Amino acid sequence: MPSSQASTQSALAHAVRAQARAGTLSGHTAGLAPDLVQGNLMILPAEHASDFLLFCQRNPKPCPLLGVSAPGEVSFPELGHEIDIRTDVPRYRVWRDGALVEECADVRHVWRDDLVSFVIGCSFSFEQALMDAGVPLRHVAQGRNVAMYRTQVPTISAGRFHGPLVVSMRPMKAADAIRAVQITSRFPSVHGAPVHLGDPSLIGIRDLSQPDYGDAVDVMPDEIPVFWACGVTPQAVVQAAGVPFSITHAPGSMLVTDLANVSLASL
Amino acid sequence: MPSSQASTQSALAHAVRAQARAGTLSGHTAGLAPDLVQGNLMILPAEHASDFLLFCQRNPKPCPLLGVSAPGEVSFPELGHEIDIRTDVPRYRVWRDGALVEECADVRHVWRDDLVSFVIGCSFSFEQALMDAGVPLRHVAQGRNVAMYRTQVPTISAGRFHGPLVVSMRPMKAADAIRAVQITSRFPSVHGAPVHLGDPSLIGIRDLSQPDYGDAVDVMPDEIPVFWACGVTPQAVVQAAGVPFSITHAPGSMLVTDLANVSLASL
Repeated sequence: MPSSQASTQSALAHAVRAQARAGTLSGHTAGLAPDLVQGNLMILPAEHASDFLLFCQRNPKPCPLLGVSAPGEVSFPELGHEIDIRTDVPRYRVWRDGALVEECADVRHVWRDDLVSFVIGCSFSFEQALMDAGVPLRHVAQGRNVAMYRTQVPTISAGRFHGPLVVSMRPMKAADAIRAVQITSRFPSVHGAPVHLGDPSLIGIRDLSQPDYGDAVDVMPDEIPVFWACGVTPQAVVQAAGVPFSITHAPGSMLVTDLANVSLASL
Repeated sequence: MPSSQASTQSALAHAVRAQARAGTLSGHTAGLAPDLVQGNLMILPAEHASDFLLFCQRNPKPCPLLGVSAPGEVSFPELGHEIDIRTDVPRYRVWRDGALVEECADVRHVWRDDLVSFVIGCSFSFEQALMDAGVPLRHVAQGRNVAMYRTQVPTISAGRFHGPLVVSMRPMKAADAIRAVQITSRFPSVHGAPVHLGDPSLIGIRDLSQPDYGDAVDVMPDEIPVFWACGVTPQAVVQAAGVPFSITHAPGSMLVTDLANVSLASL
């Protein structure tokens, strides 16, 4: 984009983060700064960070890393100007031994110098590219969260981190599904191409009307369900591993970065 | 490819065409010079050529043009060294008023100075790319012709040329279907990305076991049928139009060009 437009976008991202930091924004970030990359957040003690990094390296489709901090570091200069990862996400979740213990607007009160922050690509970026290309997304049209499912497809384990792949599902007409493969293939850093399409039972999903996360949406007779690897996968894996302490974003409440979605396109 | 390899390939193409010209090769070209582009052939009187050119322009997925001659011209320097389009295809079909009247090894005896030759991309090129990427093709494994079907999807008409899209079908596991969309999208000049996948009835195909052209192949329970626009479309359209005179290649007996398949890749 032109540099004036880029600086406007960057200013928008900065404004969203400033609102989150000030506590005046505490909800979803969907639709805020739609041209900018938003990220899933996972914060872990350093003793677990190297295994988690390896897990992400081995499972790049559900865990596309946009950035990893040094232990204790709260800024992310490669993702945005003056980010403070302790305050700039609108809503956080704090986990102890795999259980949710607190949802809060900032995490300065639980911050430790050994914490490593992982920012992981999210489907908002490729959804914007799909909509820009005229591919309709039912959950967006219906104002619902995307439907997500635990599959019987295993991830590749790393240390204590293991578990099934979680996927998101978007129903599409076949021509749109083909177009969606083309478009999302250009965005490997935000989950990339679908991992499956068609018969849900082939990946261990019994009933599309019963998602494990998010909201069910209808699949019309002339549509095919299309499945993408989902950023809930690393969260589910970390919680299942019973890591003594971790922090994540609250669902839908992402880190808004200064990066333009288009900057992630591989082609 | 390195220039020494390119010249070896070009020599191979030249040898295949020389055999066709000498009458010592009169069968299929599938598997001959697999790294080189092969083309469907359509030869029409000049009075119909401009409408046919427009038809191809309007329907690029079934009719991807690799080359068009001037009226009466028999060489195709952009497609190969010393091509004579009247002799260098192993087997031709001559059509009058939409009916097949002759199958022959060369067409010098019916050549006219007003004939325009169209060379149209063929799926051999993308099938090679699929197999190189490890995507299995059942009809190849079973030594059959690909299954082809008339659909209820209309082409965009041009002059007297109109009719339904003909598609080829290849059954694949979902992950291979996704990979096949990626791979064939790189080859827009040889039919490109699929036009449909999944439920055949949505494009007007009633029974996959009853193809209109070629041979049926099994679709396994864990597979999805994937459909590509097919080069039989322009042949069917020209025959249905009852053009007084035309010449085509015989099925599977293509023009072998000097172009490497990889040279067609758009990315």
